[in-house]
Amino acid sequence: MSTQTPPAPAGGLGEMHPQRWGAPSAATDLPDSARGLVEMAFGLRPTPAADDAPLPAPGIGEAALEALREAVGSEHVLLDDDVRRLRTRGKSTPDLLRARAGDLADAPDVVVRPGGHDDVAAVLAVAVEHHLAVVPFGGGTCVTGGLAARREGYAGLVSLDLVRMKRLLEVDEVSMTATLEPGLRGPEAEALLAERGLVLGHYPQSFQFASIGGFAATRSSGQSSAGYGRFDAMVVGLRVATPRGEWVLGSAPANAAGPDLRQLVLGSEGAFGVITAVTVRVRRLPEVKVYEGWRWGSFAEGREAMRHLAQSGLLPTVLRLSDESETAINLARPDAIGAGEEDGACLMIVGHEGTAEQVVARRAAVTEALTALGGRPQGEGPGESWAHGRFDAPYLRDSLLDVGVLVETLETATFWSNADALYAGVKQALESHLDGALVLCHVSHVYETGCSLYFTVASAQGEQPLEQWLAAKAAANDAIVSAGATITHHHAVGTDHKPWLGAEIGDLGVSVLRAVKADLDPTGVLNPGVLVP
Amino acid sequence: MSTQTPPAPAGGLGEMHPQRWGAPSAATDLPDSARGLVEMAFGLRPTPAADDAPLPAPGIGEAALEALREAVGSEHVLLDDDVRRLRTRGKSTPDLLRARAGDLADAPDVVVRPGGHDDVAAVLAVAVEHHLAVVPFGGGTCVTGGLAARREGYAGLVSLDLVRMKRLLEVDEVSMTATLEPGLRGPEAEALLAERGLVLGHYPQSFQFASIGGFAATRSSGQSSAGYGRFDAMVVGLRVATPRGEWVLGSAPANAAGPDLRQLVLGSEGAFGVITAVTVRVRRLPEVKVYEGWRWGSFAEGREAMRHLAQSGLLPTVLRLSDESETAINLARPDAIGAGEEDGACLMIVGHEGTAEQVVARRAAVTEALTALGGRPQGEGPGESWAHGRFDAPYLRDSLLDVGVLVETLETATFWSNADALYAGVKQALESHLDGALVLCHVSHVYETGCSLYFTVASAQGEQPLEQWLAAKAAANDAIVSAGATITHHHAVGTDHKPWLGAEIGDLGVSVLRAVKADLDPTGVLNPGVLVP
Repeated sequence: MSTQTPPAPAGGLGEMHPQRWGAPSAATDLPDSARGLVEMAFGLRPTPAADDAPLPAPGIGEAALEALREAVGSEHVLLDDDVRRLRTRGKSTPDLLRARAGDLADAPDVVVRPGGHDDVAAVLAVAVEHHLAVVPFGGGTCVTGGLAARREGYAGLVSLDLVRMKRLLEVDEVSMTATLEPGLRGPEAEALLAERGLVLGHYPQSFQFASIGGFAATRSSGQSSAGYGRFDAMVVGLRVATPRGEWVLGSAPANAAGPDLRQLVLGSEGAFGVITAVTVRVRRLPEVKVYEGWRWGSFAEGREAMRHLAQSGLLPTVLRLSDESETAINLARPDAIGAGEEDGACLMIVGHEGTAEQVVARRAAVTEALTALGGRPQGEGPGESWAHGRFDAPYLRDSLLDVGVLVETLETATFWSNADALYAGVKQALESHLDGALVLCHVSHVYETGCSLYFTVASAQGEQPLEQWLAAKAAANDAIVSAGATITHHHAVGTDHKPWLGAEIGDLGVSVLRAVKADLDPTGVLNPGVLVP
Repeated sequence: MSTQTPPAPAGGLGEMHPQRWGAPSAATDLPDSARGLVEMAFGLRPTPAADDAPLPAPGIGEAALEALREAVGSEHVLLDDDVRRLRTRGKSTPDLLRARAGDLADAPDVVVRPGGHDDVAAVLAVAVEHHLAVVPFGGGTCVTGGLAARREGYAGLVSLDLVRMKRLLEVDEVSMTATLEPGLRGPEAEALLAERGLVLGHYPQSFQFASIGGFAATRSSGQSSAGYGRFDAMVVGLRVATPRGEWVLGSAPANAAGPDLRQLVLGSEGAFGVITAVTVRVRRLPEVKVYEGWRWGSFAEGREAMRHLAQSGLLPTVLRLSDESETAINLARPDAIGAGEEDGACLMIVGHEGTAEQVVARRAAVTEALTALGGRPQGEGPGESWAHGRFDAPYLRDSLLDVGVLVETLETATFWSNADALYAGVKQALESHLDGALVLCHVSHVYETGCSLYFTVASAQGEQPLEQWLAAKAAANDAIVSAGATITHHHAVGTDHKPWLGAEIGDLGVSVLRAVKADLDPTGVLNPGVLVP
């Protein structure tokens, strides 16, 4: 049992490496335990990244630059290669493969760092006047191409870097809300809240680097969603800068004053406006956190137990279940990957956070339910191991890319009755498009009516790993769509999922998104090419 | 302790009276207990309604009528006075005052009864071709003018009566979802679900008559929202007929595939499309229901207890608190109105529903918390009394209007820290605009970050009761807006709240609603004048 807040990111909160996840200092060799597995499955083939290529000169005119300097101050308008390189795309495997190959075609011409809402509004005014494309940049952790805006037809591509907007603007300890600026990274927001004894409780795998604005703009969901809810469920208010002016929403926790327009901003991925403040529901810092392992005979059996908990109102704070393959290679415990498991079957992580009293009561009820359903308790060892490594998988990906393994993740969600078919369909699509691929899956988000499925895929890199992956990913997306599931449970649309969005929200859904976009951003300067088909 | 489903409506599920709530057979004299109170406060002045006036002849051309007959069959295209009268406006006090005065200006020209989605689509095609205004009509219980569409500029006003669309289309007992047609009234939907051992759990005061489609279109919230959630939180899928075609949403319980467009349909009040099917989360029928009373020293003290429960994750199924005035006249127990209360202060109703085990555990935890906070348990008497009369207040309103009392309700919501100021502001606005008014209030919906406030106002009718009320209501809305609260927590916008909507969602919010409306309903045939300013 531990009472720590999530560990600070390895390498601190510095910049991420342009070709890797996290800071350069966090780069490590592949753990020995994984090395043997990889060698056996795919072979080890050192695959170094190309040296950083020089960037093309900024393709933006002096008049626009001067206007941007007037808007935010010249010290916040940056043309340096290093800064621009770090604002080039996000952190999907395709993004990393392109960066490792020296492809910097999506680099912004200029990085602009507003200090607050008014600065953002001023930058948008300049963007409209000079027809500049504006890409809001928070943590840079996007894995769906949401930072690779279309530049054709624009007089320049501006990375709107929110790194200076890191204030905790307001705390209301009666209503238990806090208003945060969008540039705060996960640990920064939690540290500011923790000073008041408060917690947000949003821990996606990108937590160490991802930002509050990004959580809102992408409808993010974290590893503790069973207890704290999705990010969109935490948001009660938003302030947005649009090319047509300021938009403030959030008159009450809930209302019937027409459609809930907050839910139109959440998930808008920078295409409708720039979120400049987010008011979220907060809670008291948990006194106790306990994570434990449970073992199930099969993935289906474990999912049934999850469904039972969700439909009985018995959800713990963290609830996660690895399938047979993921359990076998121990992916849920990155420090012991490939170390094998004596017990086989499927590992479930169950975490409880809250007051001591709450944790005792909830843990007892969940334990009783899981035992009755045939789960075998494994104690806190597997739980602590998971908690310790919960943000580490992206670092491991870098080490695998270094030895010639192609590795990526994708995720979806569906209703419980469709989970088996969806699981089989996606797995089959990936396996048939990637020779000898290892396809692992876990459920990490559950609802009364359904659950997410999160896949990790590894195979040997071929000659053209980017094309190799894109073909497999397209097949997986087709399988998801034909199963009637969502193309993304929490990774967002970006540019990568856009071709499949229409199949999910219909022609009218696409039409509505375009209408809203045209209304709020009439000249189309906001993240062009992202989200809206 | 009882295990009943909610009582069937007095007078059965028949038509409501055009000038009253509920069926004519449900009309009763004012209970003796209330009679004395009313006589003392306002005087008793018999105020009979005018006889039903004849309706103007249907103002719609024969070609349009013929096209409608082709669309749905001639037996489902009704021009009868009685039918049209019953589809005239909703059930706000202004609606009733107009009806009682013989004003039928908003009567539809024709009532059309589609049998399913395709019929609705066909009617919309006719409406576009002939430029007919279409008002979707479910239960007819709207209290915000949502059924009084603008007719000027249209070749006819069609009431699209969903009374034939009452099927339970699908049940998924694994995912615990059910797909319902929009014309099902509350008790009808629950009866169909109860045959499978399921429950929806949505009990607004309008439950006996209001429809599934209306619940969705207005973002309704019921008396058991603490346990079952708001209706918008129950919806996982929607099928909508729009003038531009069919729109189906709901790929998963939650997703990150851009903005959640379901939340744009929920609350759209018939202005964006006609909801033809709603897929909702359902639960197992509760084995046990228990409602009990608690007593608090003041409204503020009781609200603090509610806040504590909401913020501790300890919510019962029903949680409701009357202020001092409402407690004093016993409004929470319509069978004993005006009978006085020996104990003073504020009455809270706490209800638990679920399995026996769940109710025992939750009741114990809530009881412990409320006791620690200074609440005084009153046993099940007050709870059963409230449960028995939970849908009766609108019948009482008729009896009060009959004796010259002006009575109406209005509701809002805000964050906890603003509840005191909002309460005082609205109360003051109402009292200063209605001489000698009795202003009562309760909280019936709570969230972690805030709560609703529901006001009931009674005063003596003046010479022009309609104008008298509209002035008071405008003052209350101004007070709500200046307190930064929502103009409606669950009554919707309709036409009555429209002038205040812009203050809540901003000019850009209004602009977005207009853009979506123009996109989905380019010729503006859907509920013109409703919702969208």
